Amino acid sequence: MQDIKKYVDQHKDRFIDELIELLKVPSISADSAYKQDVLNTAEAVKTRLEEAGCDLVEVCETKGYPIVYGEKIIDKNLPTVLVYGHYDVQPPDPLDLWNSPPFEPVIKKTDLHPEGAIFARGACDDKGQMYMHVKALELMTKTDQLPCNVKFMIEGEEEVGSESLGDFLKENREKLSNDVILISDTGMIAKDVPSITTGLRGLSYVEVEVTGPNRDLHSGLYGGAVANPINVLSKMIASLHDENNHITIPGFYDKVENLSAEERAEMAKAPFSLENYKKALDIDAVYGEAGYSTNERNSIRPTLDVNGIWGGYIGEGAKTVIASKAYAKISMRLVPNQDWEEITQLFKKHFESIAPEGVKVLVKPHHGGQGYVTPITSVGYQAASKAYADTFGKTPIPQRSGGSIPIVSLFEQELKSKTILMGFGLDSDAIHSPNEHFGVWNYLKGIETIPLFYKYFTELSK
Amino acid sequence: MQDIKKYVDQHKDRFIDELIELLKVPSISADSAYKQDVLNTAEAVKTRLEEAGCDLVEVCETKGYPIVYGEKIIDKNLPTVLVYGHYDVQPPDPLDLWNSPPFEPVIKKTDLHPEGAIFARGACDDKGQMYMHVKALELMTKTDQLPCNVKFMIEGEEEVGSESLGDFLKENREKLSNDVILISDTGMIAKDVPSITTGLRGLSYVEVEVTGPNRDLHSGLYGGAVANPINVLSKMIASLHDENNHITIPGFYDKVENLSAEERAEMAKAPFSLENYKKALDIDAVYGEAGYSTNERNSIRPTLDVNGIWGGYIGEGAKTVIASKAYAKISMRLVPNQDWEEITQLFKKHFESIAPEGVKVLVKPHHGGQGYVTPITSVGYQAASKAYADTFGKTPIPQRSGGSIPIVSLFEQELKSKTILMGFGLDSDAIHSPNEHFGVWNYLKGIETIPLFYKYFTELSK
Repeated sequence: MQDIKKYVDQHKDRFIDELIELLKVPSISADSAYKQDVLNTAEAVKTRLEEAGCDLVEVCETKGYPIVYGEKIIDKNLPTVLVYGHYDVQPPDPLDLWNSPPFEPVIKKTDLHPEGAIFARGACDDKGQMYMHVKALELMTKTDQLPCNVKFMIEGEEEVGSESLGDFLKENREKLSNDVILISDTGMIAKDVPSITTGLRGLSYVEVEVTGPNRDLHSGLYGGAVANPINVLSKMIASLHDENNHITIPGFYDKVENLSAEERAEMAKAPFSLENYKKALDIDAVYGEAGYSTNERNSIRPTLDVNGIWGGYIGEGAKTVIASKAYAKISMRLVPNQDWEEITQLFKKHFESIAPEGVKVLVKPHHGGQGYVTPITSVGYQAASKAYADTFGKTPIPQRSGGSIPIVSLFEQELKSKTILMGFGLDSDAIHSPNEHFGVWNYLKGIETIPLFYKYFTELSK
Repeated sequence: MQDIKKYVDQHKDRFIDELIELLKVPSISADSAYKQDVLNTAEAVKTRLEEAGCDLVEVCETKGYPIVYGEKIIDKNLPTVLVYGHYDVQPPDPLDLWNSPPFEPVIKKTDLHPEGAIFARGACDDKGQMYMHVKALELMTKTDQLPCNVKFMIEGEEEVGSESLGDFLKENREKLSNDVILISDTGMIAKDVPSITTGLRGLSYVEVEVTGPNRDLHSGLYGGAVANPINVLSKMIASLHDENNHITIPGFYDKVENLSAEERAEMAKAPFSLENYKKALDIDAVYGEAGYSTNERNSIRPTLDVNGIWGGYIGEGAKTVIASKAYAKISMRLVPNQDWEEITQLFKKHFESIAPEGVKVLVKPHHGGQGYVTPITSVGYQAASKAYADTFGKTPIPQRSGGSIPIVSLFEQELKSKTILMGFGLDSDAIHSPNEHFGVWNYLKGIETIPLFYKYFTELSK
C-alpha cells in the first residue's frame, strides 16, 4: 500500500509528461483528415504498453482503426482482468471557444482543481483515464506486486460507434477471455464524494435529411409557395416532444423500466444543488420531462436531443434563399431494456410518417448501443468499492450515469463477463466540449486506486 | 427601328464577350473576403459607361461599397431616365452543386435557351441585366438617336440590403433628378409571354440566436435535463406558422391588402401549369397558406421563411453534444402597406416572448424594405409596354412579383418618381442558386427593347 503511493509520488512528473505527449496527437476518429494521427496514436499506445511491462502487444487491424491488444500473463490459474479504453477523441470544434489550442496541452489551476488540471481534447475522455491503467500496470510490475493477469484492449473508434469492436470480440473470444472487465471512461460525483457507475444509458444516433425543391431557390420568387425544408425540419423536430417534453414516437416508452418510489427516493439522496447546477451552466431554469427531477431526467429516463442542424445560407451577411436540403443529427439516450435497434426503427418509421407533402425525408441510422446495469453485489463491484475506500477514505456511492458506453452490453454478450466502471473524472471536466480537462489529482488518484482493485479482486475471487 | 436590330446583330459577339469579362470578377458583397473584387467591379463599370458614351462618370464613395454614377445629358428640356442596377452578386455556395465554376462563365445550350445561355453567378442578377442598359446607351449614341437624357446609378450593395443607398439619394437629389426610373432586375413569364413587373414584395430579414448552457455539453450527461438550443429553436420556428400555414405573429396581417375576387380572377388568367411547376422543382406537392393559389402565395401574400439554420456538430460522423447556441436567418416577404420596420419589431417582440425558460434569445434585425405597386396607367408603364410589343410582337402582361427590390419604394420617397421594372430574365434562370444563367437571346432582346422605351417615353411625355 505505502509503496504504491510512494511510487506514484516519485514518478508523477513523468506520468504527466507522458500523458501530455499522447494528448498532442489529434486522434479524431470522426474526421478522416486525421487518419494518420489516429494510426500514430495506436502505435504510441503499443509502445507505452510494452514499456509498462506487457509481454505481448499487438496492433490488431480491423475494417476501421486498429485495436491495440496487450497482455501480462503471470499464472493461468489466477484471475484475469481485461482493461478497455480508447485512444481516439471527439472533434474539438467549436475551436473559437477553447482558451488554449485543444492539441497543445497546458496545466492550469481551477477552483475544482487547485493542484492543476491538464487542458486538452481527450485529457479525460479517454486518453487520461486510459493511461492511468497503463501506469498502474507499470507500477505493479516495477514494484513486483501484480496479483493477477491483465489484458488490455484499447480501441480507436469509440467516438464513432466502435464499429469494428463487435467483429474483433467475436474473432478473439479466447484471447480476450477474462473474469472481469475494467473501464475508466466515466466520472465520479466529486473529489470528496467517490462514486462508481452502475448504470449506463443506451444510444441511438441518426442523421436525417429533408429535401424540398431540387435546387436552392430565391425566397422572393418561391417563398410561401413551396415547402421550405428548414421550416419543415424544424416542425418535424418540434413535434418529437409534446407539451410535457415526453417523446411522441409511438412505442418509444413501451419497454422503459419504471423505478419504484423507494429507488427514486434512494437516488434523490445523492448530493446535488440545483442552484449550483444552473449557475455552472449559466441558465435561469432547467428543462425536461414533466414529473422527473434533473438527476432522473439525465439518468433513468430516455431522451431525444438534436446534436447538430444545418441548412441554407450560414455565412456572413444575408442570402434570401430557400434551401433544397436541411439536415440534422439526432441522438436518443435509452435506458436498460430499450433495444437501440428497435428504437432506431421506431424513430425512422415515425419520422418518415410525419413528413408533409412536398418534401422527401431520409433517415440514416448512424450507430447505437444498449443500456446496462451492474449489480452492486458482484465481486467486481465489491473489489472496486474497497479500493476507493482505501484511497479516498470513503465508501463510494453507486450511481447511474446518463452517458452511454454501448460496448459494455456488447462485452457481456460476447465475452460473458461483467464490466466495472471505475471513473475518476468530474462532470465539470468538459468532455466533448471546448476546454476539456482532467485534474492532475484525479489522474494520480486513479493510478493509486487501480492496483488496489487488482489486489481486492484477486482476494475476493478465491 | 431596323438599325437597332442591325447594330445588335453586328456587335452581339462583343456584347457577350464584355459581359463575360464582367462576370469573371467575384463581386460578392456579403463576404468581406471579396472586397477588392467588388471595388474592381465598380471601376470596370465606370470604364464601360465612359466607353458607351456617358459624358460624366464618377465612382462615388459611400460608407460601404461605392455607387457608380454616369450621365449623358443632351438637352435639359427633354425627359430624363435614371437607370438603376447593381454590380454586386450573391454568394455562390453551395459550390458543389455548380456544374461549372461560378466565376468562369461558359455558354451552354438548354431546353429553354436553344441559342445558349451564359452560366455564371450574376449572369442574370444583375450584371447581365444591368449591362443591357450600358449597351443600349452605346447603341443609341453610336447610331445618333438618343431621344432623351440618361443617368446611371449602379450600386454594389444590393445583395446586402443597399445600406448606403438611402444616404446617397438624400445627398444627391438634384444630381439624380429624373422623370422615370428604369430597372432590369426582375423576370418575365416566358420568352413568348413578355411581362412587366408592377408589384414587388417588401422584406424584413433578421438573424436569431438561441443560447442555452454557457458551453457545449455532453448529451449523455446533460441530455434531457437542460434546454437544448437546437430543439428549442426548432420549436420556436415551428410555432411561427399555424396548421393552415398562416403566420402566427400577432398583428402581422393587420395592414395586408386583401385583393378583390375580380383582381384575383384577373391574376389567375396568367399562363401557369402546376404540373410543370412541380416537375421543374421535382416536388410531389406544393405547400403554403390555405385558401390561396401558388401564384397568389408567392406574390400577393406575405410569407416567412428560414433562409439558413445552424448549430451543434455539423461535420462528418457523429458527436454527442448539446450545443450552447443555435442560429437561424429568417426573412419575411411583405406586401404593399406592410411596413418592414414595424413588422421587424412585431417579429422581435413575438420571438422573444415565445422563448421558454432555460434559454436566452437574441433577435438581430438585418435589413429590409417596403413593397411597391406601379400603376399600369403611368407614362412609364405605357412606354415599356409599347417597347415590348415592338420587339416581342405581343403586348406584355402586368405581373406582381414575389421578390423584393426594397430600393424601389425608397426611390419614390426620396426622388419622387415612379419605377418601371423591365426584366428580361426567366424564373428558371436560377438566380441566387447554383448554375445561375442568362439566355443570350434574352440579353440581346433586352438591348433591342430598351432604346424603344426611351423613344416611346420621350414621345408620350410630350
